[in-house]
Amino acid sequence: MKITAVKGANDYLPAEVQIRDYLQSVILETYQSCGFQRIMTPILEDIENLDKSEGGENLNLIFKVLKRGDKLRKALDTENLAEIKENDLADMGLRYDLTLPLTRYYANNRAKLTTPLKCIQIDRVYRAERPQKGRLRELMQCDIDIIGDSSYTAEIQLVTTTATALLAVGIDEFRVKVNDRRLLKALLENCGFAEKEMESVCITFDKLDKIGAEGVKEELEEKGFAKEAIKKLLEMLEVQPFTLADAAMLCGENHPAVASLKVIMDSVRELSEGKYEIVYDMSLVRGQGYYTGTVFEVESPKFNGAIAGGGRYDNLIGKFINENVPAVGFSIGFERIFSILMSMDFQIPGKKDKIALIYDRVDCIAAMKKANELRVIYDVALFERPKKVGKFLEKLKTMGYDGFLNFGISEQVSELK
Amino acid sequence: MKITAVKGANDYLPAEVQIRDYLQSVILETYQSCGFQRIMTPILEDIENLDKSEGGENLNLIFKVLKRGDKLRKALDTENLAEIKENDLADMGLRYDLTLPLTRYYANNRAKLTTPLKCIQIDRVYRAERPQKGRLRELMQCDIDIIGDSSYTAEIQLVTTTATALLAVGIDEFRVKVNDRRLLKALLENCGFAEKEMESVCITFDKLDKIGAEGVKEELEEKGFAKEAIKKLLEMLEVQPFTLADAAMLCGENHPAVASLKVIMDSVRELSEGKYEIVYDMSLVRGQGYYTGTVFEVESPKFNGAIAGGGRYDNLIGKFINENVPAVGFSIGFERIFSILMSMDFQIPGKKDKIALIYDRVDCIAAMKKANELRVIYDVALFERPKKVGKFLEKLKTMGYDGFLNFGISEQVSELK
Repeated sequence: MKITAVKGANDYLPAEVQIRDYLQSVILETYQSCGFQRIMTPILEDIENLDKSEGGENLNLIFKVLKRGDKLRKALDTENLAEIKENDLADMGLRYDLTLPLTRYYANNRAKLTTPLKCIQIDRVYRAERPQKGRLRELMQCDIDIIGDSSYTAEIQLVTTTATALLAVGIDEFRVKVNDRRLLKALLENCGFAEKEMESVCITFDKLDKIGAEGVKEELEEKGFAKEAIKKLLEMLEVQPFTLADAAMLCGENHPAVASLKVIMDSVRELSEGKYEIVYDMSLVRGQGYYTGTVFEVESPKFNGAIAGGGRYDNLIGKFINENVPAVGFSIGFERIFSILMSMDFQIPGKKDKIALIYDRVDCIAAMKKANELRVIYDVALFERPKKVGKFLEKLKTMGYDGFLNFGISEQVSELK
Repeated sequence: MKITAVKGANDYLPAEVQIRDYLQSVILETYQSCGFQRIMTPILEDIENLDKSEGGENLNLIFKVLKRGDKLRKALDTENLAEIKENDLADMGLRYDLTLPLTRYYANNRAKLTTPLKCIQIDRVYRAERPQKGRLRELMQCDIDIIGDSSYTAEIQLVTTTATALLAVGIDEFRVKVNDRRLLKALLENCGFAEKEMESVCITFDKLDKIGAEGVKEELEEKGFAKEAIKKLLEMLEVQPFTLADAAMLCGENHPAVASLKVIMDSVRELSEGKYEIVYDMSLVRGQGYYTGTVFEVESPKFNGAIAGGGRYDNLIGKFINENVPAVGFSIGFERIFSILMSMDFQIPGKKDKIALIYDRVDCIAAMKKANELRVIYDVALFERPKKVGKFLEKLKTMGYDGFLNFGISEQVSELK
C-alpha cells in the first residue's frame, strides 16, 4: 500500500492545521463582519457544466469522475475504441474553481437570496496540474463575490473587505493594483491593435512581469502584429509611472472606465486610513477570459508576487439564466498566505494554551476529573506516564504543547521549554 | 446547463451554512479542549488503497477518478473491451470514510507525531449511494481517534469527549450503549454457534433493531444455523435487561471484555456527573468488519436512532506498517445532528447581530465609514436603497438579518420584525 498522500495533495500535521484553521476563521469573520454571507456548494459538478464553463486553461485540468454501473458499461459498448472520449466515461468532475459553482448556485437558488447577493466561499478546488513546487492539485480558495450590483460601490466594498482581511491576518505591507479591461482595450486600440487581435495581445501583455518589455515586444513581433502598434505600446510602457491621467489623455476623460477607476481609487484611499495603497496599473491583465471591467490584484513587496486577485465578470452568470446579471469577485490566495505564515514561524495570537496531563493508570478517574477542571483554562490532553518521560516531553514540544502537569507528583502546570 | 447540485449533494443557503459552521466549531473546540488535535488529509486517495481497505459495502460506493492523458489512452488500448475493469480506467477515488485516510496518514507521518496520537478529523466523505431521503452522496463526518493506546482509558476518553461535544451542541437527552466484540463472540459461542459462522450470525443479529427477535430467528434459520443455537440466542434476548452480570455468568467473570466493559462503564458513569447514561447492550454489533473490541453508539430517544458510533479496531493500521498498532475511534453523525437542529428551528447562541445599512449612492463613502464604526458591534452589509424598501426588508428577514439602518434618514438601528 502507498503511504504518501496522492500526488500534489498534502497531509497536514496538527500544527499546520491549527494555522490553516486560524487563517480561515480570521478571513471568514472579517468577511462576515463586512456583510458577506457564506454559502456552500458540492465539490462535484456536472461534467457538462464544467466543460461549458469559461475556465480557459483550467478546462484541461479537470479531474473527472468515472460513470458507474450500467452507464459505464454502455459507454464502453462501442465498436471503435478510438472514438471513446473522456466525457463518454465521466458524468461529473471536481470543480477547478469556485466561480462556476457560484454561478450555478445563483441560478438554482436566487429566489431564496437577496439581490445584490454578497457571498463568501471558502473551500477546496482541484486541478490536475503537473506536480511541482508551489503547485497543488488540491487547494483552498477564499472568494467574496457581489452578484447583481453593477455600480462601482461593489468594487469599493470588495477591495476594502479584502484589504481588511489581509490586515487582520497579519499581512501588513501590500498594495492594491487596479485596472479596467475596457480601458486596457481602449489603450491597445489607441496603439493601433485591432479589436480581433485583443485577446492574443493581452495574453502576451499579461507576461510583462515575467519577460519584461523587451520580451513582450519580441513575442508580439513573433505573433506578427503591426510594428507601429508594438512601438506605440512600448513607448507607453516607458512612461513611469503611467498614471490614470495619462490614460485619460489618450482615451478621453469621459471614458467610462476612467471615471469608474477614479471613484474607486479615491474612495478606497479615503477608506484605507493610510494602511495600504491603491494604484492604477495599466499593465494589469489578470488571466481569466471572463473579466469584463475592473480587475484587481494585491501584491506584497515583502512576499514577492500576488496574494489576492479578482475582477468584474458581468456576462458569466447570465449564461445560466438567460439574463444579464452583473457580478464582481475578489479571491485571497489562501495557500500563498498559508505558506507565508509557515515560513515566518507564525504564532497564533490569543490561542488557549495546550497542556499534557501525565498520569498513572491507577489514578485514571482522578486524573480525568482534574483534566476537566483545567479545561476551563487549557486544552488538556491525557497521557499515561511513558517510560521515558524526558523524551516524551521533547516530542510534546514539537507537537505544539505549551506545558504539562505531572499528576500525583506536582500540583503545578510546568512550561515546556 | 443544469442548475441543480449534482444528485445526492446539496447547495447550502447562508442560514444553513451558519448552523453547519457553528456545529462544526463547537464540536471542534470541545474535541480540542479534551486534548485532541486536528489533522487533515486529501479527499482523494490512491485507488488501490481504497480497494484494499476493509470498507465492506462501502467499497461498492466509491467515486473513482478517471486516469488522464497517456495513462487513460493506454488503459483503453485493448482488443477486448469486455475485459476493461473500472480500476483500469481510474487511478484515484474519493474517500468513503475518514478511517482509511487516517491509517495511511499515521503510517506516513508517525515519526512526526506523539504516540498515543489523539486526533480529530472533521471533513467530507463521498459515497455513490442510490439517492434517497436522508442518504447523501457528499457528507461531513466528525471523528476522534486514539492511536497507539491499548488500554480502556482510551475508550473512557473517547466516550466522555463525545458526550461533552453532544451536550455542548445542545443535544441533552441521550445514552451511550457499549458492547465488546469479544464478549459478543463469546456469548454466541456459548449459544453453540461455531467460530466460522460468527460473521454471518453477526450480520443478521445487527438487524435486531429493525426486524425484531422473531425476524432474527427466521433469518438465522433460513441461513441454516443449528436450531439449538438459535433457540439459546432467543432465550438470551428474552432476559430484559440482559446485564453485564448476566454475560459474566455465561462467559466467566474473568473474561477480559467483562472486566474492560465494567471499568469503562463505572468510570464514564462517575465522570458523566449524571448528565447522560451508559449501558451495556449485548445486541450492539456496529456494522464495520474491522472492529476488534469495544464498540459504542449514542442513541437519543428524542431523535429516534443513533447519533454517534465507533469502536476499537486494533488490526487496521498495522496493515500499512506491518506492526501491531491499537486504535479506537468515535464518530459523531454530523449530518444527523444538523438535520435535528434544522428541524427544531435552532438559534445560534451568542451570535453577533447582522444588520443592513441602506444608503443612497451619493452618500457612499460616508455610509461605508459608518458601517466600519458599526462593525465593532454588528456584522454590517451595505445595500444601496432599493426601489421597494418594504419588500427588500422582508427578504432581508428571511436571509437571517436582525436589523437595518436607514443611513441619512435615521441614526438608529431598527429591528427587523
